Amino acid sequence: MRISDKDDGFTRRMPAHFRKWVPAGGICPYDDCTTLEISYLTDKKKLRSYIPEEFEIARPLVMVMYEKCNGVQWMGGSQYSVAAVSVPVSYQKTKEPISGVYHLVLWEDKTEPIIGGREEAGMPKIFADMPEYRRRGNEISVNISHEGRTFLEMDLLIGRAYTPAELVDVNKDNGRAVQFGWRYIPKIGPYPGPALSEATYYPVDNTFTSVSECTGSVKWTVPGPHDHPTQYDIIAALADLPAKEYLPGSYRRGSTTMRMDLAHSLP
Amino acid sequence: MRISDKDDGFTRRMPAHFRKWVPAGGICPYDDCTTLEISYLTDKKKLRSYIPEEFEIARPLVMVMYEKCNGVQWMGGSQYSVAAVSVPVSYQKTKEPISGVYHLVLWEDKTEPIIGGREEAGMPKIFADMPEYRRRGNEISVNISHEGRTFLEMDLLIGRAYTPAELVDVNKDNGRAVQFGWRYIPKIGPYPGPALSEATYYPVDNTFTSVSECTGSVKWTVPGPHDHPTQYDIIAALADLPAKEYLPGSYRRGSTTMRMDLAHSLP
Amino acid sequence: MRISDKDDGFTRRMPAHFRKWVPAGGICPYDDCTTLEISYLTDKKKLRSYIPEEFEIARPLVMVMYEKCNGVQWMGGSQYSVAAVSVPVSYQKTKEPISGVYHLVLWEDKTEPIIGGREEAGMPKIFADMPEYRRRGNEISVNISHEGRTFLEMDLLIGRAYTPAELVDVNKDNGRAVQFGWRYIPKIGPYPGPALSEATYYPVDNTFTSVSECTGSVKWTVPGPHDHPTQYDIIAALADLPAKEYLPGSYRRGSTTMRMDLAHSLP
Amino acid sequence: MRISDKDDGFTRRMPAHFRKWVPAGGICPYDDCTTLEISYLTDKKKLRSYIPEEFEIARPLVMVMYEKCNGVQWMGGSQYSVAAVSVPVSYQKTKEPISGVYHLVLWEDKTEPIIGGREEAGMPKIFADMPEYRRRGNEISVNISHEGRTFLEMDLLIGRAYTPAELVDVNKDNGRAVQFGWRYIPKIGPYPGPALSEATYYPVDNTFTSVSECTGSVKWTVPGPHDHPTQYDIIAALADLPAKEYLPGSYRRGSTTMRMDLAHSLP
Repeated sequence: MRISDKDDGFTRRMPAHFRKWVPAGGICPYDDCTTLEISYLTDKKKLRSYIPEEFEIARPLVMVMYEKCNGVQWMGGSQYSVAAVSVPVSYQKTKEPISGVYHLVLWEDKTEPIIGGREEAGMPKIFADMPEYRRRGNEISVNISHEGRTFLEMDLLIGRAYTPAELVDVNKDNGRAVQFGWRYIPKIGPYPGPALSEATYYPVDNTFTSVSECTGSVKWTVPGPHDHPTQYDIIAALADLPAKEYLPGSYRRGSTTMRMDLAHSLP
Repeated sequence: MRISDKDDGFTRRMPAHFRKWVPAGGICPYDDCTTLEISYLTDKKKLRSYIPEEFEIARPLVMVMYEKCNGVQWMGGSQYSVAAVSVPVSYQKTKEPISGVYHLVLWEDKTEPIIGGREEAGMPKIFADMPEYRRRGNEISVNISHEGRTFLEMDLLIGRAYTPAELVDVNKDNGRAVQFGWRYIPKIGPYPGPALSEATYYPVDNTFTSVSECTGSVKWTVPGPHDHPTQYDIIAALADLPAKEYLPGSYRRGSTTMRMDLAHSLP
Repeated sequence: MRISDKDDGFTRRMPAHFRKWVPAGGICPYDDCTTLEISYLTDKKKLRSYIPEEFEIARPLVMVMYEKCNGVQWMGGSQYSVAAVSVPVSYQKTKEPISGVYHLVLWEDKTEPIIGGREEAGMPKIFADMPEYRRRGNEISVNISHEGRTFLEMDLLIGRAYTPAELVDVNKDNGRAVQFGWRYIPKIGPYPGPALSEATYYPVDNTFTSVSECTGSVKWTVPGPHDHPTQYDIIAALADLPAKEYLPGSYRRGSTTMRMDLAHSLP
Repeated sequence: MRISDKDDGFTRRMPAHFRKWVPAGGICPYDDCTTLEISYLTDKKKLRSYIPEEFEIARPLVMVMYEKCNGVQWMGGSQYSVAAVSVPVSYQKTKEPISGVYHLVLWEDKTEPIIGGREEAGMPKIFADMPEYRRRGNEISVNISHEGRTFLEMDLLIGRAYTPAELVDVNKDNGRAVQFGWRYIPKIGPYPGPALSEATYYPVDNTFTSVSECTGSVKWTVPGPHDHPTQYDIIAALADLPAKEYLPGSYRRGSTTMRMDLAHSLP
């Protein structure tokens, strides 16, 4: 069996001896998604230290988004949840700059979208437990945890629903959101430098059936190093970005389409 | 912030803007491990079709191993479980052939060792739920499942304990086991061919405090494509390898040391 | 501290030294529920052997219902899932017979509603894992499992939506459903006979915002005695009730109100 | 079918139409248990307010115990974990007082032992998530949580191992521990007073294969009422019992036998 022939027309995934196919498409529908989002202005200089120099910060904004994804077709109609922390940026190395969000981190509660997102698109996904959001009247809350220790809480109050005209507006241009990441695969063993290191582009289309304004806030709790050895420093860095001013957030229902067919490495 | 400078002396992991260090060591102790192993002779021709041509099959043996790992130091003393399906091989492209096992698949029940093993060593790790092994007298059983559907069962009967002399024997040369994998990272987007594709070498040392012989068998149940879209074909391929003859297995207690400091890509 | 004073005006729950209150109300809103239901005609004689003689079987029907409950107010807006197997009956020992369903079993995936339902209303609740329902187009499926082994599957095809007039009809009289159970608390220690044994009445109100017809079926898989020691005989009894003819089922969205304020022991 | 005949020689469990047997025995072996225990002197007056007047407090001690139970035979060799908070007492209403521990609360992470313990022995068991204990060298830690929020942490340092003579001593008289509880089953519906209310007696035998001394402490974190509606007040009451002085704890391995054959209601 040959994996090492690079020009056989196939793409593969690990275990590469079992999983190969002729690449085609990559359009992944998620039929039923619920999204909570809130953002806050932060210190631009601190933020700058976490954004690769190839990107320009459009606004020193920390966007915190939680999404419960149902009806995920590539998972047989199953579900998973996401918590993303992102920054609005533009990529500067292409002829025309490209606008989008750079993900500082993406937590997800299933392994398969994590390994796919990391290896195939450079999305900085890591694992967390996230019980489904809770709702009491107009209050919605979410908490993200590791082995029984919550490190991120989001508490929102749902306000005014969007008018039909506003809804049309958020859905124009396929409701497209452009995601940027940085794919980094290390050398194997105790050697410095990457085996692969590059900026990545990965768009997502959305059709929102309802959107409401929200107010609210997030709370970070930094775990001890022994309690969460592989992520406490990530959480500490995020918790250290001050929330200078909260902007209005949103509560959205709709469907999402992952556009792997349009994804690519950036020059 | 620069990730793109490849000669800064650092290695990184995604999110690469947060996680960087000067590589050093990579010796990871697992203080308390329980291992169950059973193997069976299979059809060599079928098996050959899943082993990259760089490896020679030492014996047409399917080795099925379950391990409950406790006291995992890099996880703060926490735990995870592994189920491995492997084949004894030797790697042929080095000056001297290297003996070891080629992993057909490794299931684990936590995300972090999965993404580390895949990205940093080419280990073909994927996720499964695995309740801790059950024990009733000398009967030990394990079942591996996806969203409530068991696809692999291992039922063993514990027999005679190893003598001290036999125990010394399994522990000689650091109880070293050599693992081979194939690291494959695809291009981003709908394009054939890899961004990275290579055979990998990753040894593990073991100190067994007790070993007992076992007899037993495994049972594969192939899930429907919709029930387990990303793994049903892997399980079907494994289930299709006939169990011609079972060999004696073992039940082992001890500690394990992952030797990432000795891991490397193969030529 | 006195628990033993039975006339202090309080009701209690275990731990009874911590949990006491003046009983009042018992109306529990569940804001957002999704229900899947399908039923089949079975052998009346076999069915009769599981229904206490105080009840008359209205129709020899096995009703299998799955419900995902969100926005459960008494759980702080959290969620749980239910799978119920029930039979339409009427209770005969009251002056006027009362119509409702007798629950053969109720599986739930959280402990708190299980212990409440058993101790406070005689609902025969036991635990199972139930991943959220999956949806692919008009196909909805659910599987109920124990430690990785599925014992009940429900596969439905969603059909025609109810007209507004039909929707009004299912919601009339508060959409009330009457549940019957049998509360049985044994003596402590190895003695025959109950400490408490009685038929129970517990209504539920529903407001459905949408209903669709469904077709489909269920599949029972009886686990081995060692695989599921405390439930395999329950599942075997249910699997032994033949599915002679399936009736149309339904897929419903709406809200539910548990009416503990109206619950009582039956004479 | 008759459940209502109280003298048929059977005992039953809900669902009582499915589950009946002639009572006999009730000896339940747990083959492989790991126990961590630490205790502290507290305010006797506060403690008194949670102990029924039928019991005398032997010493104003809060005993906090965590146990990982493996090889549970009545669960097919499966596992569960327990966290108990108990007080040494003697029961005063029998001719001779009986010494034992009164459980303020027992958290467990599986439903079946919870419903059995509550209904069949008056043990005040409620649910919590508890990841298996972590070990780093001689440090052992455990955290108990609800939906991602830790409310109890135990951090111990393992010290000196018991001598063979000390081990003989802890195992004498079958290593018996007497547990007391209070079984309380309410009336159904919004009515004050119990349907059943009584003190209970339930012994456990132990064979310890190793014991080590421990030092350490526990930490309580009281959740918000909405975060944990059914337990926050229990946790608040426990957190309010001051830790005046810690006593030496222990780390124990061995087997346990639940003695339901000796359990009974107290007069």
